[in-house]
Amino acid sequence: MKSIVILGAGNVAFHLTRALIENTFNVRQIFNRTLENAKEIGEAHRIPYTDKISELEKADLYIIAAADSGIEEFSHYIPFDDTLVVHTSGSSPMAVLKGDYRKGVLYPLQTFSKNRRLRYDEIPFFIEAECKEDELSLVKLADKISNEVHVLPYEKRMQIQMCGVWANNFVNHLYYIAGDICKQNNIPFDVLKPLIEETADKIEDLEPFEAQTGPARRNDHIIINRHLEVLQNDSRLLEIYQVLTKSIKRTYGHD
Amino acid sequence: MKSIVILGAGNVAFHLTRALIENTFNVRQIFNRTLENAKEIGEAHRIPYTDKISELEKADLYIIAAADSGIEEFSHYIPFDDTLVVHTSGSSPMAVLKGDYRKGVLYPLQTFSKNRRLRYDEIPFFIEAECKEDELSLVKLADKISNEVHVLPYEKRMQIQMCGVWANNFVNHLYYIAGDICKQNNIPFDVLKPLIEETADKIEDLEPFEAQTGPARRNDHIIINRHLEVLQNDSRLLEIYQVLTKSIKRTYGHD
Repeated sequence: MKSIVILGAGNVAFHLTRALIENTFNVRQIFNRTLENAKEIGEAHRIPYTDKISELEKADLYIIAAADSGIEEFSHYIPFDDTLVVHTSGSSPMAVLKGDYRKGVLYPLQTFSKNRRLRYDEIPFFIEAECKEDELSLVKLADKISNEVHVLPYEKRMQIQMCGVWANNFVNHLYYIAGDICKQNNIPFDVLKPLIEETADKIEDLEPFEAQTGPARRNDHIIINRHLEVLQNDSRLLEIYQVLTKSIKRTYGHD
Repeated sequence: MKSIVILGAGNVAFHLTRALIENTFNVRQIFNRTLENAKEIGEAHRIPYTDKISELEKADLYIIAAADSGIEEFSHYIPFDDTLVVHTSGSSPMAVLKGDYRKGVLYPLQTFSKNRRLRYDEIPFFIEAECKEDELSLVKLADKISNEVHVLPYEKRMQIQMCGVWANNFVNHLYYIAGDICKQNNIPFDVLKPLIEETADKIEDLEPFEAQTGPARRNDHIIINRHLEVLQNDSRLLEIYQVLTKSIKRTYGHD
């Protein structure tokens, strides 16, 4: 890719720009509807930025790094036909891109926060393109950033993105609940951090099926009942506790 | 503590023995009903081991590192009165210890697997004892192993232990589910590992409430409905997905 323009200035745009710059790609411009956010990324990497569609530079690749709800709008802004336009979403089909250009997808599976340093070479990238030539050039681009690049059609990409909901969104919500219970008992959330870290680290060595411990896995109703008693006045937590306990029990044949 | 005897030979006993030995405590004996497991820990640390109650050595501290269901049985084995006996469970009261000796609890909050190297200095220990003197000596012991030692009564210890169920047992089950969806789509589970690691690492910098992302947090029903459609033939996953999504939505005011 000789030249790249990034559309969007959120967390994905921030990290993707940095990953591209670090791998000596030519990012020519950041476009965003809110100039301030584009400015932040642009100034950090000495890349021109704009909020004017009329100033959009010609490039070989446009990367729309926007939320799902914004991809289609962004996709209308690109007035050039002889170029490749991709979005970075796991859960939107390639067809949300509306234009006469060539289309593709470059989906990085990670949770992006601006102030976090990420190892880009470990982030899996999932690629899709209308034509083989573009697929190959996107794979080449992603290969420079990451060691984990896959070509994957929409249906499977969405499954992978949904796995991210389970392994990130839902997991983080369980951290929140655990933290909330700590807070209610005047216990600092920090005491849970080594456990949280070890739970994640453990699956480097053990399959989650093997790593499972706890009262539901052991079918230990004395402990489960003590927990249900503690939670009896909180119908929201009670419901989650019961549903997950039931699922663990079923997984280990304690039906 | 001049001398310590460990009762039990599971993962907690294994790591606790190692942590004590590394901090130059005098572990005199490992007792277990199945000799083979006691032998493994005993030989690893050159500590005598036995499966015979009659051979139980006199010591200043007995640590019953057994599953909740086994603590009471172990507690009957100790024939000495002038000694301190503790268990290591978060979810059992001190009173499950049946004997005329002094009683206490030494609860390490971590998930223990034999083949994992753990940083013992980071493991929070929660202490309880019948008398102040024993409380102090247990705190001193735990202080040598860990930087995070708290005195905590049973009711709060059980809350903390339940937090472990949320932050470890349930989280690991979500890893399992995500891995299972990967497997069904012929995608290697490994692609999720950087995301899982980053999700855990992120809370070092961000409170889980701030770190939350995803369709439920954004109240993005287009994506949520796509996921529900994918899951429609799996009532177990559908139920968990719906319950957790509802809870995240409620947490962020999307009721």
